Order: sequence, then C-alpha cells, then structure tokens
Amino acid sequence: MELAKRLDRIQEPQTIKMAKLGRELRAQGANIIDLSLGEPDFITPRHICEAATEAMQQGFTKYTPVAGLPELREAICEKLKRDNGLDYTPDKILVSTGAKQCLANALHCLINPGDEVIIPTPYWVTYSALVSLTEGVVRYIPCFIETDFKLTPDKLEEAITDKTKLFIFSSPCNPTGSVYSREELAGLAEVFKRHPHVAIISDEIYEYINYGGKHESIAQFAELQDRVIIVNGMSKGFAMTGWRLGYMAGPKDLIQACEKFQGQFTSGTNSIAQRAAIVALRSDLGPTREMTEAFRKRRDFVIDALSKMPGVRVNPPGGAFYAFPNIASFFGKTDGETVITDDESLSMYLLHKAHVSTVNGGAFGNSNCLRISFATSMENLQEAMKRMAEALSKLH
Amino acid sequence: MELAKRLDRIQEPQTIKMAKLGRELRAQGANIIDLSLGEPDFITPRHICEAATEAMQQGFTKYTPVAGLPELREAICEKLKRDNGLDYTPDKILVSTGAKQCLANALHCLINPGDEVIIPTPYWVTYSALVSLTEGVVRYIPCFIETDFKLTPDKLEEAITDKTKLFIFSSPCNPTGSVYSREELAGLAEVFKRHPHVAIISDEIYEYINYGGKHESIAQFAELQDRVIIVNGMSKGFAMTGWRLGYMAGPKDLIQACEKFQGQFTSGTNSIAQRAAIVALRSDLGPTREMTEAFRKRRDFVIDALSKMPGVRVNPPGGAFYAFPNIASFFGKTDGETVITDDESLSMYLLHKAHVSTVNGGAFGNSNCLRISFATSMENLQEAMKRMAEALSKLH
Repeated sequence: MELAKRLDRIQEPQTIKMAKLGRELRAQGANIIDLSLGEPDFITPRHICEAATEAMQQGFTKYTPVAGLPELREAICEKLKRDNGLDYTPDKILVSTGAKQCLANALHCLINPGDEVIIPTPYWVTYSALVSLTEGVVRYIPCFIETDFKLTPDKLEEAITDKTKLFIFSSPCNPTGSVYSREELAGLAEVFKRHPHVAIISDEIYEYINYGGKHESIAQFAELQDRVIIVNGMSKGFAMTGWRLGYMAGPKDLIQACEKFQGQFTSGTNSIAQRAAIVALRSDLGPTREMTEAFRKRRDFVIDALSKMPGVRVNPPGGAFYAFPNIASFFGKTDGETVITDDESLSMYLLHKAHVSTVNGGAFGNSNCLRISFATSMENLQEAMKRMAEALSKLH
Repeated sequence: MELAKRLDRIQEPQTIKMAKLGRELRAQGANIIDLSLGEPDFITPRHICEAATEAMQQGFTKYTPVAGLPELREAICEKLKRDNGLDYTPDKILVSTGAKQCLANALHCLINPGDEVIIPTPYWVTYSALVSLTEGVVRYIPCFIETDFKLTPDKLEEAITDKTKLFIFSSPCNPTGSVYSREELAGLAEVFKRHPHVAIISDEIYEYINYGGKHESIAQFAELQDRVIIVNGMSKGFAMTGWRLGYMAGPKDLIQACEKFQGQFTSGTNSIAQRAAIVALRSDLGPTREMTEAFRKRRDFVIDALSKMPGVRVNPPGGAFYAFPNIASFFGKTDGETVITDDESLSMYLLHKAHVSTVNGGAFGNSNCLRISFATSMENLQEAMKRMAEALSKLH
C-alpha cells in the first residue's frame, strides 16, 4: 500500500529499538539486564487497583466525556493546589490517554507549518517527532554536563525569534534527571516575560521522583501561568504506566481546542483508569514516597558505581530514574575486536559484550552520553554495573 | 493563545452537541429521554471485568508493546478466523485506544493532501472529520432510503477516479443500521477489482449487533483482502465502550506504519483492558447474543411505533441500534409556535417539546432523516415513542 508522506517525518524511537534488540538477544538465551526502559519496575499500589475493581462493579464501563470525568478534573485541580500551589478550574484541565497524547494534542492545536519550537537538549525524543508531524521547525539549544544539562537565561534569550511559537522542556528531565530550582526557573521566566508570544509546555511527568526537595513548576510565575501548559500524568509517580492516563492544565481556549482534537482521535480515555486516578490523586502519597526512596538508593549506588569507572563522567541526577553519563572518552578505543566510534557503537558494545541494554545519548540530542535507567532491582543494578565496569575496562 | 489552523477543519460532532444540550435541560429539571447516544445501555459482562481484576492482581499494570499484547493480537486472529473465516497473522493486527483511533491511524498513514476518499452517505461523522484533518478530499455518494441507504455497484464505479485513494463504509451501518449481504458486497467487490489503486476501510464495529443472520466482511473476497482494512473493537458487541479498545486488521506495511504513528500519539493502549479483551474474544458469545436479542425486541417495538406515526417513513434496520426515519414530510409544518424548517429544527422541537433527544440526519449526511438510538430500556422507548407521536401529531 502506498503510505502517506507524513510518515517520513518520524522515526521509530531508539528506546523502542533497544527494547526490541534486548528481547531478541534474550530469546536467543542471553541474560540481558535491561537499563533502557522508562518505567518504574513497581506495580500499581493496591488501593488504586481496588478503586478500579470497584468502578467495574459499579458498572463504570461506559463512555466518559471527551475531556475526562468531571470528578477527575476536579481531583486534578485539587492536586495542583495541594502539591504546586496552583489555582486551576476543571475547564482548564484535559484528561488524555497518557501524557504523550497531551503533548500530541497541544502540538497539533498550537503549531502551524513553519512555526518554530525551541527544545533544549538533551530532550525526550517524542517532542521533536511531534513537532515534525505538525510541520513545525525545531530549534535545539544544546545544554551540556557543565551546567547540569540545564538551560540558562542567556541561551534562551538568544534562541527566541519572532517565529518562536513554543518552548518545550521537562523538569525533572528525561533523559538527564536534572531538576530546575525555583531560582533557575525564575531566570527563564524573566526571559519569557519579555517575549509574550511564546507558549511553554512544562512536562512534569517525573514530578514526584525528586531527590532534592520540592518540585517547582514554571506555571508558578503568575505572569506566565496563562501561557504555560503543564503536562503530567499517573505513569511515573504512581507506577501506572500501563493505564495510559495523562493530563494537561492550561489556558481554557487551548484546552477546548485539544478537547475537540482528541474527540476525533480517541475520545475520552479509559473510564476505569479515570476512576482509579481519582483515588490515586486524592490518597496519601505514602506509596509514591516509598518508591521514590527506593529510586534514591538505586541512584546513589549507580552514580557511585559509574563515578568509579575510569573515563566515565557523571552528574548525580536530582530527579527521574536515569543517569546520563558522558562517555566520549571511549570514542576511538577498542577491545581488540570492536572499535567504539560513537555513543551508538558503545551502547551496542555494552549490549553484546556485557549484556546490558542502555540507550545512546544521541537519541536524546547528546551523542557524548548514554542513558542508563535505574528503574530496576538493586540486584540487577549491581550485576549490570559490574559487567559495565569490566567491559569498559577492556577498551584501550 | 493563537491556535493552529488545522482546528478550523473539524467541528464538534452533532452527537456530542445533542448530549450536552440534553444534560443542560436535565439539569434544569426536564425529564429528558436520551435517544441520541451511540452506546449499549448494558454494562460490561462480569467475566470480562473479572479478567481485568485478575490482570491487576498479577501486576499487569505496565507498558505494553505499541501494537498491543502479542496474546491479544493472536486472540484477534482467532476471532477473525472463527467469526469471519478470515486468515490473519498477528503482524497484521494493531490494537488501539478505540476503533476511532484505528480510523485516525489508518487515515493519517494513507492520505496525502489532495487524495480523494469516497464515503457513501449516510455515514459516521468521524470519517469525514479525519479526512479533513489529513487534508484529503471527501467525495460523498448519496444513498437514500429507497435502496435501504446502501451503495450500489454502478454508483461506486461512477465515483472512482484516478485520485481515489480510499473508500470508507460501515456494515452494519451507523447511522442507518443497514447491513450489506454477501451478494451486495460481491457487487461492490467486482468494482474494486477493476480499480486496484483503491484501499477500503471496512468499519465492522457493529458486527455482533445483527438481526438478519451472519455478518459478512468485504475482506472475505480473497482478491481484495490485502487492501481491506478491517476496523473493529470491543465497544458495541461486548458493552465495553468505556474501555477504549479497538483493533485493525490489514496489510503488514500499513499496520507497521500505523504502529509507528500510534507510537508517537498514545503508545500501546491500556494494559488491563487488553487482558480483559483477550478473555472477551475467547469466551462464549452468550452475553453478546443476549444483548443483541434485547436490541432486536427494542428495534421491533421502535420500528412498529415509528411506522404508525403519520408522515414518518422508516426501514427496519438489519443491525446496529439505530432507526433512521425519513421525516422530510414535516418540513414547513408548525405547531402554531415553532416552524419546522429542517431536520435540525425538528430534532430541537422534539427535544424541547417532547423532551426526547435525537440527532438530526444532516450530522450523518442526510438532512431528511433523524437518528434514533434504541440502546435504552423498553420503558424509556415506550414513553419516548408516545411523546414523539404526540408532538409530531401537533404539526400541521
């Protein structure tokens, strides 16, 4: 069948490619440790699953409004007040099939062909894929390990043009784990205040996985709130990846547009997941804190182990569950068989020689790094770090 | 916020508008009987809900492959063999967030700007909205009550041009309930054989709600199978509208393209719903048959009642849960207060005077009709038909 040309504008993500390769090697009998994944290894807390069962028992198995159950939209407003000190009303909230659909909705409802979208790197690959689908133009701002991969106000000021429509970033960041402080966000906010034509997507999906203290949102700057689109969801903080429930908070006109757009793509998301989400958001966050504590211990272990590997340079991430070490010192080296030419070849070397699956940094806009997920058991991490250290020590 | 221009290409569906109006009047205290809805009034059968609970208990709360769980894709192949005599392999199946997303995927992966898409009317409004979003051009073929709203081979032949990329239809049909027989499909298939550049989307979401015997799919014509895209799902036959689980069966290259596209929009759909769907598809279809039997009784009642209303002309639908009466004889009439000018004003007259919510046929491409859903209790239907008869009898 002759396919539509818009497909040429997107590629299969490297994360999915690595997951497939890992599965193939495992099927051949290799004991692969997968550090390429972007999801908690925990299962959904029991009280949330029980809310889903109860919803089914009550016959809550029918279509919901496209924008989400009114009660869920209220619970999201309560959450935004409780956790972020933000005032929203339900008509500024849209519930979607995962945070990914929130991004897809927002980009399709904002971007006309030729509009510029600024993305600081490293970044989550779906951002640029969606900009391409909407025929926008991505302007990357490279950010490096020296500034903890964070964007500075001067670089932002320099990148904004008359054509800039949108800025997209995440904090805590996938893939670097970097967390912007209130002061750092204030610096960026000052720049945005001077450029009122720029909308901001603030991807806060890793909000609860924060090792440094309180999560800060750029929507907290009152002058900006009406052009910030907060994207968040249940996947990471509540171990609900499989449920596909994300939400967006933003200006009413955009929310209405996204509702119309989503109404033609998927309609309202799973009714049972929505009921479970109400309970999750309104419950004590104890299980979330316990998971974050487990991630913290793993982070400490992984960062310590990586720091001890000669040639690896790594910052401790303030949030999320990824390490993003710089491994450029290995380029040009060899174990006598394989020559490491770049991040991808190092990732492949680790996959085939150490049976450890990572994702090359180039997939996130920085080819000097690797993304290493620590969302797996301490046992797996210990074995993986041992294997990695050994494999890297063979490169000369 | 300045919104993207693509939003101007789609409108809020009339079905959603009527649902909203009904809710508003109900909030004001009116006893509205809603015959505007497109979902079974039954709740999901218990054994399917139990499968979902079991999936949660087993920790099945994580990301699934974008294309769906391998076991679900196998269960869909088994279903296509068992119910439709069709041979498919799992790599020709894609699982999505509702049949609506199947359509969105297929259209975005097939249609380039300017491509022509043929849609016989009356049709489900999402078809044309999605064609507009992909910048395709819709060519409608009007079909009327005289041919039971079905397309004939000569009309199809006449409509196909060199630019025709795709043909979309549903059987059983939303909104008319018309069901194509094997012979009728064979007639259309002969035309398609002469035009190998035309792909076919066969929307079979109402498959199980069939009062006339066996469901027939145009994919059963072997010469066509590799350019037919079957769209189906769990919503109507299993009373699972809220679960948002649809699937598509089609040529491998298109399925792969849709997988890539869906991977950027929503990823794999709800993991728990997928496990429930496996059980639903592999179980005895007893509950489905019971629901269909209930719909049949309601159909018989509604068609009988409508037939007795002077000025109403109606065909008994062979499937789905809609009556689609021609009500053009009322245009120009009045009850002394309201003048009926068209289908929309008649629908509004019934809403405000009889407190019965219907959808005007123009929303589906035929402005001489109304769509009346009989997916509600017999008690509601009796009261609604009484009120409608009375309100219509006042028009002179």
